[in-house]
Amino acid sequence: MSADEHDRLTAVYGPLTDAVRELIDATIRTEADEDTIRQARTAIQTATDALRGRVRDESQVVRYAVDGRPVVWSNAVIGLRNPIAPPLTIQHDSDRTRCWSEFTLNAAYEGPPGLVHGGVCALILDHVLGEAASEGLTKPLFTGTITVRYVRGTPLGRLRAEAAVERTEGFKTFVSGHLSDAEGITAEAEGIFIQPAWARETG
Amino acid sequence: MSADEHDRLTAVYGPLTDAVRELIDATIRTEADEDTIRQARTAIQTATDALRGRVRDESQVVRYAVDGRPVVWSNAVIGLRNPIAPPLTIQHDSDRTRCWSEFTLNAAYEGPPGLVHGGVCALILDHVLGEAASEGLTKPLFTGTITVRYVRGTPLGRLRAEAAVERTEGFKTFVSGHLSDAEGITAEAEGIFIQPAWARETG
Repeated sequence: MSADEHDRLTAVYGPLTDAVRELIDATIRTEADEDTIRQARTAIQTATDALRGRVRDESQVVRYAVDGRPVVWSNAVIGLRNPIAPPLTIQHDSDRTRCWSEFTLNAAYEGPPGLVHGGVCALILDHVLGEAASEGLTKPLFTGTITVRYVRGTPLGRLRAEAAVERTEGFKTFVSGHLSDAEGITAEAEGIFIQPAWARETG
Repeated sequence: MSADEHDRLTAVYGPLTDAVRELIDATIRTEADEDTIRQARTAIQTATDALRGRVRDESQVVRYAVDGRPVVWSNAVIGLRNPIAPPLTIQHDSDRTRCWSEFTLNAAYEGPPGLVHGGVCALILDHVLGEAASEGLTKPLFTGTITVRYVRGTPLGRLRAEAAVERTEGFKTFVSGHLSDAEGITAEAEGIFIQPAWARETG
């Protein structure tokens, strides 16, 4: 995918997906009367029908950007086209063994009142550790094991996640990382990522 | 909350949230032209504005059903009012130390093409283990540690999650569980859940 095509598609799909993210937040927090809710539902169904006028069968289509990195627009954590993704924008250091992201989690990611769902912390840590292990999703790897230790409740709002490769032993890559708010670390994670058998033969 | 009030609110909010879930799927998979996408975005913004005519400040409001179990409608995994929740309906056995859920994950939960995002597996396992540990969210507990071991890729589609309390030692409850498709287990989890200090004094 050329840089121009990437920019064009970002301009088409980015605002659509952001509009759905706003709608998700409004849906959770609305106290509108029943008539208003019915009318909103009709408007939503109209939008859904229009978008379904032409759809692809495959859920995910992975394309590659000019720099060789995959553009995974449907991904549940980083997908530009996936409204359930916050989405995270992952930053990588120059040798791609360390990465981080700063992002905001709103009501859609809640577990206990005011706090991020513990499983959402695990979702984000799993993704960020995987990005570090796979050098920005450029190496084929799958998660073997991930352990998340919860230090304290993670508040909704502005957060940061980061991860770094600790070491590689044969087909296994050991990665650690954490989630933090302005006060410090809220959850820590360790993961073991494994190179699939088919990739060992060629690489 | 009386059973009648619960039914009334379910009838108001359930179809709205389901309509947003359909829209999320359509947003990910659409290949509509730019004009159609612009029109859909306008319809979505109209719905969002209407719903935001009256909203509550708090993200989550926990109320209690007639059976004393919390109704957590904004929850990211089980929330009736949260469009990013699949949502899971959790079944508990009679002594509430074992629970399970059968559910469908569509394109919104994807990681690698055709497969559930590994972090989404962790999200769901964290929730189901927590339900078992807390006897259906009736006991105050927070997650101390959770470990997820990925056996193989979890395909999008129909899935089952289950969890059971293994043992309790002082303030710690040890729980295990797994995620499976029709072919068997795809991911296993173990968790340690901890009773908060304030709850120890009272009970």
